[in-house]
Amino acid sequence: MKLGVLGAGQLARMIALAGFPLGVKCALLDPAADSCAGSLGHLIVAPYDDAQGLSQLATVADCVTFEFENVPAHVLESLVRQVPVYPPPRALLNSQDRLREKKLFRELSIPTAPCASVGSLSELNVAVMHVGLPAILKSRMLGYDGKGQVVIRNESDIVAAWEKIGNVAAILEGFVKFDREVSIIAVRARSGETRFYPLVENVHRDGMLHMSTPRPGDVMQVAAQAYADKLLGALDYVGVLAIELFDTEHGLLANEFAPRVHNSGHWTIEGAYTSQFENHLRAVLAMPLGDTDVTTPCAMINLVGEIPHRDELLKVPGAHLHLYDKPPRAGRKIGHITVCAPNALSLPSRVERVLALIECN
Amino acid sequence: MKLGVLGAGQLARMIALAGFPLGVKCALLDPAADSCAGSLGHLIVAPYDDAQGLSQLATVADCVTFEFENVPAHVLESLVRQVPVYPPPRALLNSQDRLREKKLFRELSIPTAPCASVGSLSELNVAVMHVGLPAILKSRMLGYDGKGQVVIRNESDIVAAWEKIGNVAAILEGFVKFDREVSIIAVRARSGETRFYPLVENVHRDGMLHMSTPRPGDVMQVAAQAYADKLLGALDYVGVLAIELFDTEHGLLANEFAPRVHNSGHWTIEGAYTSQFENHLRAVLAMPLGDTDVTTPCAMINLVGEIPHRDELLKVPGAHLHLYDKPPRAGRKIGHITVCAPNALSLPSRVERVLALIECN
Repeated sequence: MKLGVLGAGQLARMIALAGFPLGVKCALLDPAADSCAGSLGHLIVAPYDDAQGLSQLATVADCVTFEFENVPAHVLESLVRQVPVYPPPRALLNSQDRLREKKLFRELSIPTAPCASVGSLSELNVAVMHVGLPAILKSRMLGYDGKGQVVIRNESDIVAAWEKIGNVAAILEGFVKFDREVSIIAVRARSGETRFYPLVENVHRDGMLHMSTPRPGDVMQVAAQAYADKLLGALDYVGVLAIELFDTEHGLLANEFAPRVHNSGHWTIEGAYTSQFENHLRAVLAMPLGDTDVTTPCAMINLVGEIPHRDELLKVPGAHLHLYDKPPRAGRKIGHITVCAPNALSLPSRVERVLALIECN
Repeated sequence: MKLGVLGAGQLARMIALAGFPLGVKCALLDPAADSCAGSLGHLIVAPYDDAQGLSQLATVADCVTFEFENVPAHVLESLVRQVPVYPPPRALLNSQDRLREKKLFRELSIPTAPCASVGSLSELNVAVMHVGLPAILKSRMLGYDGKGQVVIRNESDIVAAWEKIGNVAAILEGFVKFDREVSIIAVRARSGETRFYPLVENVHRDGMLHMSTPRPGDVMQVAAQAYADKLLGALDYVGVLAIELFDTEHGLLANEFAPRVHNSGHWTIEGAYTSQFENHLRAVLAMPLGDTDVTTPCAMINLVGEIPHRDELLKVPGAHLHLYDKPPRAGRKIGHITVCAPNALSLPSRVERVLALIECN
């Protein structure tokens, strides 16, 4: 079986690595010739909207998926005419546009923070009255890892925010007071069967995911799972999907969803019976889904910028290093570490040891 | 870091897969252009004794290791002049020759079955008197998976056995009554640090490994570990090594050792904190060794001949499929399955389910 993947970054890399044992080979399309999954399959170097490159991918692949969700709509349309594409393009189109995403959540009675559509400076003024301050102005399209976002704290920030966001269609979202950030990772098969990983607690830093800890048996599991289930069904979804949520005093509020494997699910490689990467492959290639149960207490920590003290990290018992083969650069995710422990009591000291090594980098 | 590997079969494939997350890339030398690890690294297609191919490997690699231990001695000598080679060639030279291997065990006071050197038909007659019948006549060189072996049950079999073994230097080994076959997998770092996986119980079928089950806390762990420790020290070993032993009423008897990652250690990919493949990489590339503790009860079953009922196997909870991308052929190892379970009680029914699927193939 050959799986086509749009994008050849670290997510594609881990998808490709999960494919080998299952007998799945990957063909990858990426604009960069030195992308980090490029050596793990048949790499097609082309822009994401290059008709020839896409046709080549469709020709060699039994099915196409993506690690990169900002693929233009017309590219998706052209692809689906040539080859099965999972997750369904509809899921991408909804996640690419923050306004559509929030509307979809609301249609499905999945609670979100207060928000309003913003198409002009005057609309922004109205939105601020409606949503209240502080609030975050986000461009509707092409945002990830805190990019395309401006915080508005006072009314005097409004004009500058509108200029900074670049005068584009946007959405204003009210600040949410939350106890913690969580995510639910779900997978849906072509048959409609669904599985859910345990709720993950996430800590962000500088707008990027810093650490994820699965919380099996969490009190919010049932609610998060119900929301994910509704979303999967509404999108007739196939593959792995993640929803990021705020856990607030009023319950869970959905922030956004990602129609792909997700950074907050990297711990599943060691910490679950079946990794999110393997389950994504299984789903899109019509294999039976795998067990999503946790095997061992664990936590995942992102490596950002540069590789710290490799050998010291490897000495931490239960630490699993995952490097992405990307040149170090400030603010760039270049790897992650999953720390496993035989029981929940022995996990925190191992995590602290890893964090200390990363901090003193 | 680039690791050179002699051989590009399934062991090299799993070494290469373990390398990616650690930032280790492989260069592989194999006589076959379609070998199953070939797409996972820089493949050099050349015979194992091809000077040019070996030089090319030595040039691109920081260190050379092997998945295939029957590399001619002069090849090893030529290699060590060009690049660090681990495990040390001495370990290979001892394991290639069944007589040297047994002598080494005895020098180290590691008990073995009765055995005798055989260089001619008349020596075979003497050896039979010495060792007793039934016994197994084995060629001294180039044997694995039951090849190059003939069972002698009666004196009338002697002449035929000598002819069948091909009139070559051989060793006669007495039959051992054993309760079970076990193996110990050990790893030694360049620093001399050693780690041991839990004892593995093995079941063979048609002279090939059929199933391996780790037995943490086994009563024979201490003895097996002590033997492995002596052998590692005597060979000034670096990397993963396996010893196959018979568990008899007189204690453990060493059968043979393999100076490489071993089929009976494949369960470590899912069942141990650090897989044998990763620990081999860590050892030969001078990284700290990883934790060898078991994470979950599990058992490994080889897939021989053809791939049975893939989707049915994937439906078994906790089953991990590993295909080697080798064309199916009778008697050929083409993959394995590791079945994990949350506790020892729930493992047997899962294993039975996998075995039933394989049997009805």
